[in-house]
Amino acid sequence: MKATPVKGTNDYLPKEAELRDYLQSVILETYKRHGFQRIMTPILEDAENLEKSEGGENLNLIFKVMKRGEKLEKALAAGDRKGLSDLGLRYDLTLPLSRYYACHKNDLLLPMKCIQMDRVYRAERPQKGRLREFVQCDIDILGTTSYTAELELIETTAEALLAIGLQNFKVKVNDRRILRAVLSGCGFLEKDLDSVCISFDKLDKIGAQAVAEELKEKGFAESAVGALLEILEHKPVTMEEVKALCPEEEAVENLRKIMEIASKQAGGRYEISYDMSLVRGQGYYTGTVFEVESLDFKGAIAGGGRYDNLIGKFLNEAVPAVGFSIGFERIFSILLENGFSIPDSRKRAAVLYFPQDYALAAEKAAELRKTYDVTLYEKPKKLGKFLDKLEKDGVYGFWNIGQSEELTIMAGGRQ
Amino acid sequence: MKATPVKGTNDYLPKEAELRDYLQSVILETYKRHGFQRIMTPILEDAENLEKSEGGENLNLIFKVMKRGEKLEKALAAGDRKGLSDLGLRYDLTLPLSRYYACHKNDLLLPMKCIQMDRVYRAERPQKGRLREFVQCDIDILGTTSYTAELELIETTAEALLAIGLQNFKVKVNDRRILRAVLSGCGFLEKDLDSVCISFDKLDKIGAQAVAEELKEKGFAESAVGALLEILEHKPVTMEEVKALCPEEEAVENLRKIMEIASKQAGGRYEISYDMSLVRGQGYYTGTVFEVESLDFKGAIAGGGRYDNLIGKFLNEAVPAVGFSIGFERIFSILLENGFSIPDSRKRAAVLYFPQDYALAAEKAAELRKTYDVTLYEKPKKLGKFLDKLEKDGVYGFWNIGQSEELTIMAGGRQ
Repeated sequence: MKATPVKGTNDYLPKEAELRDYLQSVILETYKRHGFQRIMTPILEDAENLEKSEGGENLNLIFKVMKRGEKLEKALAAGDRKGLSDLGLRYDLTLPLSRYYACHKNDLLLPMKCIQMDRVYRAERPQKGRLREFVQCDIDILGTTSYTAELELIETTAEALLAIGLQNFKVKVNDRRILRAVLSGCGFLEKDLDSVCISFDKLDKIGAQAVAEELKEKGFAESAVGALLEILEHKPVTMEEVKALCPEEEAVENLRKIMEIASKQAGGRYEISYDMSLVRGQGYYTGTVFEVESLDFKGAIAGGGRYDNLIGKFLNEAVPAVGFSIGFERIFSILLENGFSIPDSRKRAAVLYFPQDYALAAEKAAELRKTYDVTLYEKPKKLGKFLDKLEKDGVYGFWNIGQSEELTIMAGGRQ
Repeated sequence: MKATPVKGTNDYLPKEAELRDYLQSVILETYKRHGFQRIMTPILEDAENLEKSEGGENLNLIFKVMKRGEKLEKALAAGDRKGLSDLGLRYDLTLPLSRYYACHKNDLLLPMKCIQMDRVYRAERPQKGRLREFVQCDIDILGTTSYTAELELIETTAEALLAIGLQNFKVKVNDRRILRAVLSGCGFLEKDLDSVCISFDKLDKIGAQAVAEELKEKGFAESAVGALLEILEHKPVTMEEVKALCPEEEAVENLRKIMEIASKQAGGRYEISYDMSLVRGQGYYTGTVFEVESLDFKGAIAGGGRYDNLIGKFLNEAVPAVGFSIGFERIFSILLENGFSIPDSRKRAAVLYFPQDYALAAEKAAELRKTYDVTLYEKPKKLGKFLDKLEKDGVYGFWNIGQSEELTIMAGGRQ
């Protein structure tokens, strides 16, 4: 039998599990304080729903669950390959949200502001070192096209990151409509914009010249690439500069309001910046996109955007929506590596006893539980060695029944 | 596309999700205060591990996950039916615990006291109305044969149930060794004891006469059935009576200590009682078994026992173990039906604003968040109707920006 967890999944030891619980609870409390409410959906989804969803490449990464009993027999006998599976593990929380909305529409107060914090599954190629089971941590507002939804999401997400203890981060904002208008203005054709965006998305990583090279290699007109390069040399920063470049007045005004109020809400605790090169991968974004970049730990720690055409698919109706997702696994691994210690957590204490004293020890333990998380251990033969192990395990102090009058703090005085 | 969740699984609306979170956090905190530590394992397990595990009938209820890519092609081409699947969803938390122990043995402090609170999956027949995705809530102590482990589990589980607000429950205790010795003493053959136990387990539901009938129908000796009936007419209650019936002195003395100290720990807040007919379904229990019966809500709300031969299977070594599991889904549905309200939870408030006042509203909301969970809504045209909806949604009061000087409590004054 195989003792290691399935490839791409993890066991979490107590300290890791505690950190995960802590992060989830801080994020959840912050979200709730900002008026969002948690919903929960199953990990199993209907296979057809998954297949028909807008998952892009993720559709190739679905874990499919086999049919059972007679239905499986039938599919096998008929050589019906597709019919072998009727369920799958969800690859994100957006499809379940869309299904949830369709299912519970009549019970929902709109705009609906919801939290989803849960596991998703993707059969990533193991050599990439990516997790196949991981937690996503999303807030979404459904049912309003107002820019105030974006503002609420930015504020709430930033507050959650601050509550975790992250500092020194920047919320980058863009609008797909503006980006596309600017690119069109350079002379790129409407039909080519997706491909142009894929190259353009690499601007931060590879620089303007390399992006231009790539676009030329893709065969786009030199004039368009040249016009884009020129813009990139004097990247617009203020909304006035954007306005001069972009004919999409409404989108620019929308973004202007978001930038203005979000900056005010940030109050200098984090930065809000317009980033004309922010694309965000997902094909389904229709307007605002945002991303939080940590300046301490390079890279994105949260991202999201407006996706007005996705949630309503189950109902064939338009349901505007915007969401922001915290990169839970990334933040977890950053904090774990940095030896993050959970603030205000109860200290752990041990009560040691000889077998005949168990009842006495249990009484003492009950008393100590007012202050500590208390565990009981029968006194081992090699006490010193055992105490070392306890300390290594994070135990703060011990009570040796019959030997000591008060809690003995471990030598290291660890907290 | 199908809007309802997959058969046997549930979506949880905000109020339901909140109750689930509350219950889990109260249980988790109580477990931790008693020195247990949470571990987490993946939902996906190796298919062979699952198949070789001691799951009894649950092995027929495993959701199997199909292989992907070339491996799937190969299995299909070869008509290798078993080879179609390489993973499965776990059907309980005991197999993962066993694998976890084998994998992390060198990092563990023994006795290991761990919490597992997580989802498991069983492809139950839908007509039975059973959930196919549900949460189990276990504590286990590995690495000690001492009765003190049983005592810790009983106390911790009872404290968790009390902390949830459950009262009026009874912890029933038995020992499989005593049960088997008593049945042997009646004249049943060793090889028949499992079958006898299956009938005997129904004693509470169908009564002694019906159990006797069933045993006779199964073809067991009339004399043995008669001897058992006689014992049942004067069911032993005290440990002295048990001693007189059972030659397993060590087991009786072990149980006597558990009963004595557990009763003392209960301090009248709950009942501890010996129940000679308590069997508990699982085949793997080797000694003590226990079950918590709610007197307010008929039936078992927790159960467990000692299983000394299971955890070590991965390592081919003996690892004594004992566990206690709270019936999370049962308790959740009882409390939900009874309109349980979460104590000390923050009240929800709404701030209503005209679009141009968003920034002002956000400021007001930030201030109110010291006391309330605050959500923002653009003022709708039909305010009265919207307020009704807010109240129905559990909102306690609202602040109408520009209209009111303080929070207006909803008409019903709901908490």
